[in-house]
Amino acid sequence: MSGAWEVALAELQARLPAGRLLAGDGDALEPYGLDESDLGCFPPGAVVRAENEEDVRIVLEVASRHRVPVVPVGARSGKSGGSLAIQGGIALSTERMNRILEVSGEDLVARVEPGVILATLQAEVEKHGLFYPPDPNSLETCTIGGNVAENAGGPRALKYGVTREYVLGLRAVLPTGEVIRTGHRSIKGVAGYDLTALLVGSEGTLAIVTEVMVKLLPRPRHVATALVAFADVDAAARAVSRVLAQGVIPRCLELMDDVSLAAIARTSPGRFPAGAGALLLVETDGNDEEQVFDEIVRVADLVAADARGEVLVARDEAQRREIWEVRRYLSVNLKAIHPLKLSEDVAVPRSKIPEMVARAKAIGAGLGLAVATYGHAGDGNLHCNVLFDTAAERPRVDQAVAAILRAAVELGGTITGEHGVGLAKRDFLELEQGKELVALQRRLKAVFDPLGILNPGKIFPPA
Amino acid sequence: MSGAWEVALAELQARLPAGRLLAGDGDALEPYGLDESDLGCFPPGAVVRAENEEDVRIVLEVASRHRVPVVPVGARSGKSGGSLAIQGGIALSTERMNRILEVSGEDLVARVEPGVILATLQAEVEKHGLFYPPDPNSLETCTIGGNVAENAGGPRALKYGVTREYVLGLRAVLPTGEVIRTGHRSIKGVAGYDLTALLVGSEGTLAIVTEVMVKLLPRPRHVATALVAFADVDAAARAVSRVLAQGVIPRCLELMDDVSLAAIARTSPGRFPAGAGALLLVETDGNDEEQVFDEIVRVADLVAADARGEVLVARDEAQRREIWEVRRYLSVNLKAIHPLKLSEDVAVPRSKIPEMVARAKAIGAGLGLAVATYGHAGDGNLHCNVLFDTAAERPRVDQAVAAILRAAVELGGTITGEHGVGLAKRDFLELEQGKELVALQRRLKAVFDPLGILNPGKIFPPA
Repeated sequence: MSGAWEVALAELQARLPAGRLLAGDGDALEPYGLDESDLGCFPPGAVVRAENEEDVRIVLEVASRHRVPVVPVGARSGKSGGSLAIQGGIALSTERMNRILEVSGEDLVARVEPGVILATLQAEVEKHGLFYPPDPNSLETCTIGGNVAENAGGPRALKYGVTREYVLGLRAVLPTGEVIRTGHRSIKGVAGYDLTALLVGSEGTLAIVTEVMVKLLPRPRHVATALVAFADVDAAARAVSRVLAQGVIPRCLELMDDVSLAAIARTSPGRFPAGAGALLLVETDGNDEEQVFDEIVRVADLVAADARGEVLVARDEAQRREIWEVRRYLSVNLKAIHPLKLSEDVAVPRSKIPEMVARAKAIGAGLGLAVATYGHAGDGNLHCNVLFDTAAERPRVDQAVAAILRAAVELGGTITGEHGVGLAKRDFLELEQGKELVALQRRLKAVFDPLGILNPGKIFPPA
Repeated sequence: MSGAWEVALAELQARLPAGRLLAGDGDALEPYGLDESDLGCFPPGAVVRAENEEDVRIVLEVASRHRVPVVPVGARSGKSGGSLAIQGGIALSTERMNRILEVSGEDLVARVEPGVILATLQAEVEKHGLFYPPDPNSLETCTIGGNVAENAGGPRALKYGVTREYVLGLRAVLPTGEVIRTGHRSIKGVAGYDLTALLVGSEGTLAIVTEVMVKLLPRPRHVATALVAFADVDAAARAVSRVLAQGVIPRCLELMDDVSLAAIARTSPGRFPAGAGALLLVETDGNDEEQVFDEIVRVADLVAADARGEVLVARDEAQRREIWEVRRYLSVNLKAIHPLKLSEDVAVPRSKIPEMVARAKAIGAGLGLAVATYGHAGDGNLHCNVLFDTAAERPRVDQAVAAILRAAVELGGTITGEHGVGLAKRDFLELEQGKELVALQRRLKAVFDPLGILNPGKIFPPA
């Protein structure tokens, strides 16, 4: 370790209140070197568990002075390696900044610290009859700070939009230690550049968020859930288009392809009609129970022409849970067939869903690999899972992933619909956006972080 | 005129196809010196009416080389002076780039050039059974390019959101002449920084947009409209809160205060119940006629406790038009009482609507001026109109405006909910955002526009 590092650590030790700094203890640091990607373990040199904005400010000020990398860390549930300390330095965790500061039913607004777990916020606002829609799969563990960093989505994004649509304002500390406040408590506002939107999805490379003001909705009082089988993905995709073209926007429209279905069938044999090669999980919601039920029946009618067998509509909460278990245990079931998988999260224009699924399958087949595709069909956000059995297959898997990302871009889509670029996809950003646009973004990064100390090596390919 | 200017003009004359450049003819240039603000006439030194992206590129390249200001111009319907050539130079008009390039019902996407008039786009997508929600009052004349520059809203923003929520991607030319493409055709996508959101609302100071890809929705097939009178703004604001708290999100909730009502009463005497001091115009929409009607009845029930007299629900298109005329002729009716008015567009948290209206009135009263407030109550975006009779009153009017903007910021809101900062409010930006945040934005501007040639003097206070 360099002299600057030792001095920086000593300064942090002196300036931070007791209990904030973790250093020197490898066992304590190691968990901070992992996230939900499979990119390996990159333990930081030290961890600071900030308890307030002042702690964050001190860390960034000291790190700036000594040119030490700082990596913001939340629940470490990210899938693209965004919180890995690939250049060492300080992992700045906001997990202890977990207070819900305010829930206002009058203004339909909540103010929270970044370490609040998403499910905790949702439960709290629901007590007030309110609703915070974004629902990434990790909602029981992920934090709002991470959601803001990644612009998290989830199934309900189809009807309700992603995190960016709900963030009204932020407090954040720049890498220089300067505190900024963006946005406003009003729903509308166009003064100056939209720095709030620029920070949302910036993957912890521009600033460390210390407070988030989100917009809330009244909670829809009723939800209806249905499961529909189809002969193949094409038929399911046709059904999705027909539903949306009729102006019915369900709160989710989740697709599972034949490989996914085969995995599910292992634990639920005989559950789906013979010849089924795709599933759609549909939910509608609203305040009038009858209307919500009418709407799901309308969806069932619209998809009937393409469906295989009966549309299964949940009659009660137990049946709803049962339907969702099909989706929830999908990952586990896939691993029972192939112990390893690499999950991509491309997004394509809606009309390209069948072609994207077919291309992913063909890419896998060409390399001797099975690919299971499932995801948020309503908005074209597909999780293509490349399945494999041993680490030795990894080079082929990486080839498949690269080809899948290329296909998504060729179809007018993106390499990442909701997981972020992080470390995992930084070498593919130019493929989607071109060298010039990436260069422009590097220059924007330098405005916020002139010394390049904040989450270095992320998003952009190594120069 | 400087030598550089003459050389730049000569180069433009040589490089642009015939008919693009207007110079030397004061009468032809003068209309390009005006917009819908009352800030005066600032004719540019020359106008280029671009017909394609290459024209735009040439202008910016030449202007960069000779350090000549370039001001992007659309329909000149802006209210904050954003398109005024306050430092002379070239007005770059995109009014002739007015082709609708594509409407895709399959992907729910349209691609258009910036000069397309909003109403034209809306009519075109409606032919396909589709819907583009943003609806600023100027929709018959304003262009999509201007809507993107200002992040335009309108009454329907309550349910459907503002322009930013509909822009999926952009093509644009940087002041350096470099062409960039942001975003993607897929609904979702989180690769890199959200440059699309950064450009939307940047008021023509970062880049000139040459193509816009917007998200569309299926067109709601039915609309119901109602007009409700209240004793005062407090009662109307209570009604707004009660409606929203019940999870009913109408597509608009427009408020008019007592001064507005008095103006309307001049041309529609006896129309409103005695003692009425505020009006709400409510609309619900959807695909099921019965549901839409049920919803407006539900709204009527919810507001009944606070309302004065009967809720007037339109039974047919003629009655709908009649109700909207109340709102549409408001501005004309106000001018019949006081020939001059200055219209602000603050936005405040919903709970602060009564206080904002009361403060605006008190500020006016203290200066001997009437203030009429109306606007989009559902999202707290209020148009406070300071009314006056002669230009001699202007200093007092400016004092009133400054106090109104300060009040909005004090109440947790913003100086501009949808009109933009432009020239009109540049001296108030720091009041809302502080010196540091404004300095940060100047540095971001310099990344896009290192020479400071694009729309100079806008948004930021003079240094």
